Amino acid sequence: MSQPDPKRVKTDDDAPYVLIYWPVIPGRGEFVRLVLEEAGVPYSDVAQNIEKGMNAVKSLTSTDNVGDEHNPPALAPPALKHGDLLISQTPNILLYVAPRVGLAPREGNGVYHLNEIVLTILDGLVNELHDTHHPIAISLYYEDQKEESKKKSKYFIKERLPKYFKYMQRVLDAKTSGEGPWLYGDSLTYADLVLFQAVDGTKFAFPKSTEALKKSGEYDGVFKLYDAVKERPNISKYLRSDRRKKYSEGIWRHYPELEEE
Amino acid sequence: MSQPDPKRVKTDDDAPYVLIYWPVIPGRGEFVRLVLEEAGVPYSDVAQNIEKGMNAVKSLTSTDNVGDEHNPPALAPPALKHGDLLISQTPNILLYVAPRVGLAPREGNGVYHLNEIVLTILDGLVNELHDTHHPIAISLYYEDQKEESKKKSKYFIKERLPKYFKYMQRVLDAKTSGEGPWLYGDSLTYADLVLFQAVDGTKFAFPKSTEALKKSGEYDGVFKLYDAVKERPNISKYLRSDRRKKYSEGIWRHYPELEEE
Repeated sequence: MSQPDPKRVKTDDDAPYVLIYWPVIPGRGEFVRLVLEEAGVPYSDVAQNIEKGMNAVKSLTSTDNVGDEHNPPALAPPALKHGDLLISQTPNILLYVAPRVGLAPREGNGVYHLNEIVLTILDGLVNELHDTHHPIAISLYYEDQKEESKKKSKYFIKERLPKYFKYMQRVLDAKTSGEGPWLYGDSLTYADLVLFQAVDGTKFAFPKSTEALKKSGEYDGVFKLYDAVKERPNISKYLRSDRRKKYSEGIWRHYPELEEE
Repeated sequence: MSQPDPKRVKTDDDAPYVLIYWPVIPGRGEFVRLVLEEAGVPYSDVAQNIEKGMNAVKSLTSTDNVGDEHNPPALAPPALKHGDLLISQTPNILLYVAPRVGLAPREGNGVYHLNEIVLTILDGLVNELHDTHHPIAISLYYEDQKEESKKKSKYFIKERLPKYFKYMQRVLDAKTSGEGPWLYGDSLTYADLVLFQAVDGTKFAFPKSTEALKKSGEYDGVFKLYDAVKERPNISKYLRSDRRKKYSEGIWRHYPELEEE
């Protein structure tokens, strides 16, 4: 079977990484930023300029976008430009970047184990949390689906949140997690950064529920890992910088009424 | 930065592929089956035996599952066993299998372009369609969230379905799609099989809406690709076999009331 390789794309590993994402909110772009910040790799982030960021996202998501010579069109941000290559979908961007900046193995089974952990956290915990405030339609305001949001949040807090925390704790308890606080192997990988951001966003959106999970003592490994990431010198510097945006709209929103029973 | 590679796992490329998925329904396991069937690769499918399949899934999803010497625990099926390796998450399984059976490039940018297209279809069209009948909680029966399902379906049909069909058509219109009916490059890849299954499931769940999309004439490439996959000798043989399960419960369900306005 012949291999699809329409035009050879130059992926100059020395080319700068360019992140395309919505300005102002942390959102899914944050997972990519954390990887580049931890690795100490220079990158440019169009979201740091509101107008430039909005224009970049608009041209990416326009239905007139049919890609270019080298790349198929993307549906939604975040997207990453690296040399001639342009790719989208958060776990896909991480899969590409992490091994190039030393935060994942370049080959072998670790590639798939890490991708599995990351997909489970992103597709599960992060996407489901987003849907707690938009269970009916993303084109509607939260206020217009508030009753359904309350219903969904009740189940999210009771069933889904513990399910994902238990999963993360199980990965930490597994033989593949090695020494140290990390999810996989003996050193920090991009999966740990994904866990950190997912837990950090959950803390913001559902502070009481996250505190209750912490107090239960059942997920000590998860919270220990969260702290360990937060204390990494590059991450700590980043979190205190103005490159780290404040939570507001986007995936992680704090609506106190969604935590009231 | 050291690379996480706790224990070297033997991935014998000659070892048989073993698919672990719920018996009876097609579901997400179907994306993996189509890849193995098209490639003509022998595989065993625990779902073909109801009791064996149920037990395999139960032991996979048990909270007692903390993985093994070589593999972290999985949260949910489908999972794939190959030699000592066990991996889960549909797009991750496809990323692993497709290049090994000649349905994706083994390296280079095509790896990430295909993963991007597949993630967009699976995470978008397939997951959102699932949520049309379970917008509040997957632990509730459809009947207990029917009103919310009707609301969500209205937006899904009006906004989301055309959005994803337009995206798939744009990928087909892109320069990277090459000659022939395929999404990427000049020959069939696993992304085409993913599109086929996503459209086939959508036809079952929302027949009138899918027919309307077809009649609009705006997505001819998508429906042409659907037909081209269906006519592949191995796929056609598979679809007529009893290995192909009938739609019933699971992701793709047909509730006529969700299409009535």
